[in-house]
Amino acid sequence: MAQFQTVGVIGKLNDARVAPTLRAVCGHLARRGCEVLVEYASAAAVRGRGARPVSREVLARRADLAVVVGGDGTLLNAGRTLAPAGVPILGVNAGRLGFMVDIAPADVRSALDEVLKGRYVREPRLVLSAVVRRGKRVRGPLLAINDVVMRNQAAVRMLEFETWLGDEFISLHRADGLIVATPTGSTAYALSGGGPVLHPGLEALAVVPICPHTLSDRPVVIGADRPVRVVLGGARGTRAMCTCDGQANVTVNAGDTVEITRSDHALELIHPKTYKYFNILRNKLHWGRDRSQR
Amino acid sequence: MAQFQTVGVIGKLNDARVAPTLRAVCGHLARRGCEVLVEYASAAAVRGRGARPVSREVLARRADLAVVVGGDGTLLNAGRTLAPAGVPILGVNAGRLGFMVDIAPADVRSALDEVLKGRYVREPRLVLSAVVRRGKRVRGPLLAINDVVMRNQAAVRMLEFETWLGDEFISLHRADGLIVATPTGSTAYALSGGGPVLHPGLEALAVVPICPHTLSDRPVVIGADRPVRVVLGGARGTRAMCTCDGQANVTVNAGDTVEITRSDHALELIHPKTYKYFNILRNKLHWGRDRSQR
Amino acid sequence: MAQFQTVGVIGKLNDARVAPTLRAVCGHLARRGCEVLVEYASAAAVRGRGARPVSREVLARRADLAVVVGGDGTLLNAGRTLAPAGVPILGVNAGRLGFMVDIAPADVRSALDEVLKGRYVREPRLVLSAVVRRGKRVRGPLLAINDVVMRNQAAVRMLEFETWLGDEFISLHRADGLIVATPTGSTAYALSGGGPVLHPGLEALAVVPICPHTLSDRPVVIGADRPVRVVLGGARGTRAMCTCDGQANVTVNAGDTVEITRSDHALELIHPKTYKYFNILRNKLHWGRDRSQR
Amino acid sequence: MAQFQTVGVIGKLNDARVAPTLRAVCGHLARRGCEVLVEYASAAAVRGRGARPVSREVLARRADLAVVVGGDGTLLNAGRTLAPAGVPILGVNAGRLGFMVDIAPADVRSALDEVLKGRYVREPRLVLSAVVRRGKRVRGPLLAINDVVMRNQAAVRMLEFETWLGDEFISLHRADGLIVATPTGSTAYALSGGGPVLHPGLEALAVVPICPHTLSDRPVVIGADRPVRVVLGGARGTRAMCTCDGQANVTVNAGDTVEITRSDHALELIHPKTYKYFNILRNKLHWGRDRSQR
Repeated sequence: MAQFQTVGVIGKLNDARVAPTLRAVCGHLARRGCEVLVEYASAAAVRGRGARPVSREVLARRADLAVVVGGDGTLLNAGRTLAPAGVPILGVNAGRLGFMVDIAPADVRSALDEVLKGRYVREPRLVLSAVVRRGKRVRGPLLAINDVVMRNQAAVRMLEFETWLGDEFISLHRADGLIVATPTGSTAYALSGGGPVLHPGLEALAVVPICPHTLSDRPVVIGADRPVRVVLGGARGTRAMCTCDGQANVTVNAGDTVEITRSDHALELIHPKTYKYFNILRNKLHWGRDRSQR
Repeated sequence: MAQFQTVGVIGKLNDARVAPTLRAVCGHLARRGCEVLVEYASAAAVRGRGARPVSREVLARRADLAVVVGGDGTLLNAGRTLAPAGVPILGVNAGRLGFMVDIAPADVRSALDEVLKGRYVREPRLVLSAVVRRGKRVRGPLLAINDVVMRNQAAVRMLEFETWLGDEFISLHRADGLIVATPTGSTAYALSGGGPVLHPGLEALAVVPICPHTLSDRPVVIGADRPVRVVLGGARGTRAMCTCDGQANVTVNAGDTVEITRSDHALELIHPKTYKYFNILRNKLHWGRDRSQR
Repeated sequence: MAQFQTVGVIGKLNDARVAPTLRAVCGHLARRGCEVLVEYASAAAVRGRGARPVSREVLARRADLAVVVGGDGTLLNAGRTLAPAGVPILGVNAGRLGFMVDIAPADVRSALDEVLKGRYVREPRLVLSAVVRRGKRVRGPLLAINDVVMRNQAAVRMLEFETWLGDEFISLHRADGLIVATPTGSTAYALSGGGPVLHPGLEALAVVPICPHTLSDRPVVIGADRPVRVVLGGARGTRAMCTCDGQANVTVNAGDTVEITRSDHALELIHPKTYKYFNILRNKLHWGRDRSQR
Repeated sequence: MAQFQTVGVIGKLNDARVAPTLRAVCGHLARRGCEVLVEYASAAAVRGRGARPVSREVLARRADLAVVVGGDGTLLNAGRTLAPAGVPILGVNAGRLGFMVDIAPADVRSALDEVLKGRYVREPRLVLSAVVRRGKRVRGPLLAINDVVMRNQAAVRMLEFETWLGDEFISLHRADGLIVATPTGSTAYALSGGGPVLHPGLEALAVVPICPHTLSDRPVVIGADRPVRVVLGGARGTRAMCTCDGQANVTVNAGDTVEITRSDHALELIHPKTYKYFNILRNKLHWGRDRSQR
């Protein structure tokens, strides 16, 4: 009996380029006997392909597998709903390879066939859960697949962040901001901030200060098993913005603590058997391109 | 005849630690026959030392020399008024060496004697002038001794900056922000952003993208003789904050141009003959301290 | 019954400053009823303190605990013999805190008392084992507590390194050299090369290219459970030097593979209960010292 | 009367791909009435095109203009002979754009026509002259168009470099090596070492420590008008290699001084009127390519 009977389909919003791929995916899944659920927002694009329009929440509750068509941002967004529901995701890009949407539109039918036959690789990606504590009040939890970022809102004002790993004090960082990134997020904003690439198999986080005042305040990689706490320092009235995956925002005041723990739910990516993480990394980082002259 | 007959004195605001030094400076200058003007904000601290309280503007118009007591921030702030007026500045710190406030409180009397006798070094520092152009409207000019910074205000939103040197296109930067720093500012925010140290004798600027998306988008050093123009890209509604020396702010909209030119007025620093730029740099950057183990 | 009955003592070579501490250690251990073995090279310094001079090999075979007095380099050197023998190490510095020699000479007696009473923390540090394969010939294994470094010997000649994680190709690096560092080594040479700090609790390695040609060729952190293989590329006659912990050297020719695996033996550090890794990191990296001006 | 009557032609050694371009260049110049001199090493490739084979030295003495066909390395190498002789250079690449060989083979005839008609841009590039002083003995001068590099030869041994700007002490650097780069060299090895891009119009040098021990030991940009002196520190027997443009090598012993001054002779590059430095920079550094995901 097939493992993936009910398959949900989610497309990038407001991007006409994904429509042909969405149609191909829905039609192919229906021909293979799957029950196909399509998110309302993409339903118009796949009319007549036998897919049942549902909300993202129903899709998350009912699907055995989700096919996300778009960019990495589309997958990140969908993942924050699908990961807690335990729905694995197959990422299909819109023509340009992404870090997580690794299947090209042209290969989508053969990839689906492989996956439906059980020939695939499961790759769990660590997910973070962040809460903001202000005295006894708690806001959140917010989920983050890439990163939790605390940053100043106004122009060039430096902030102070006290960081803790469990009950062990790490340091006081004076910086524009602070990034706590998963391995998945290590190739996103954290890389621009000077952080290292973390292999997705690691259960580790990168703590990356943004434009730190002290030049030796370098990125630190820590295990994901203990909570990371970040206390915003500074005088009364100091504020920072806490953002998960560049999308959900919470204001943080001086004295508030952002507590970041590993979520119980991983994001489960489904890849063809031929998938290799470093192939994608090389491609995305243009490794091997040279600037010559030496 | 003495070169510096009328001397203005400016102290760091709201910092009681500078009061004894302010009194020492005013008393000593009076004993040496100078006419002493003190900025209103510091007048209370030096009552009875023969200094005449004036506004900063009057001080700038009348003084032959200004003595600024405080941190580098105090000097930067005073400098934006004093530089256009052509008043050279002697910087005295409040106990901790600064990049520009290089005279220790304990040495202030002997340093003043040397300077009044004409034994000193003049060190001109390049100053920038920034205007924001929106169609035919022009805001500014704002002066910057350290840097002109354009940055996103909201949390993790990347901006696009088109940069031009005169009429030559430099590049399109996708980044959190962009710093255009003078040699003076090269050891401030630009250094945190990955920029190089520029010797103050250079007539050059560092263009430093903040957390650039493209990893090869590295700091570029250009001559200060041509204007640098930065056009904020992005969709309608995109906004950035333009800040000079971390103090004056102007909002920049998509399509606006920030035009940065060298000001006609340099900031003239006065140093004792023993002054050496690299001594201060080594001290401030803790060069020579090691982290051992190798 | 005491856990550590036979204690070996090893001092930094040719450094008279460690002699008083060595005498204090040996005398104190003898008074506490331990059998004390001292390495030949340090025997002269502790004559009359009841310590029996032995070779490092005998010490490694017989001791239940080793006290190493000196710098991190002394401990690294001793560790490559003691780790395979399973002898835990208590590191005592010669007056300046090290990353691993965390006990100050003044505290050595009380620290020994605590340890002998069983009040201590064990901190295992991952150790690497490197072999060089040339066709069927194998040289090594060499042990590395900090890092395995491959580098060009001549002046400015760029090398090519093909890296593999297990049987997965990572990349082709064009660079002056390549560092594979443990968490312990992440604060040594790899940090100078732009690598991140890895918490010692991580079972991970940092792969850090030295002066890479491609600017996006950034440090990568990978799990330590699979072997890392590095193949030296280039034309016949190309050579590199492979160095473990900056001490043992092997020449590597084009086509040779350096295979780096996690050693079965960890280096076991013994610390007082008050030990905190980040306290040492903050101290050694001068975190919290500022360069002001912003 | 034409400005460039006698034109020298130099091709990349041992690279068959440049032969057709060499023939096109020689044939076209002859048709335009120029006297054409070809370096012996390229003479075989252009037999029958009316070019007279000469040594590089004769070419440098007699030519009004040199056309160099190959990569940036070919031009660097030729430039060290041609710059002192005052011969301007037109750089033609072998199919891939270089920083200095900016004319594509397909455009070479039209570019030559423009240049011969006087429609071109002269771009002088600063050249360095290095001598090594050991007591009263002097070795050199060596010319460098890109950089003067001092580096350790053996594996992972850190060196100490004392740097001076004129008679002002800069710092003591503990590092693998030290690069003193011209603006031309700023996009070569110095960029890999973390240095900034210097616009070629600047009369400035970048001093870039390689893998410095102290994390705040950052690249410094200084004016090219004063000599830079680098003294190799360390115990007797310490050695470094001093290399100019990655080609000429001199051994430096502890206590030796490498003195680097601006050469009296600039390297004069000839470009079509359409030449723009930043166009080439953007192309070579892949600016604008993105790694997406944010």
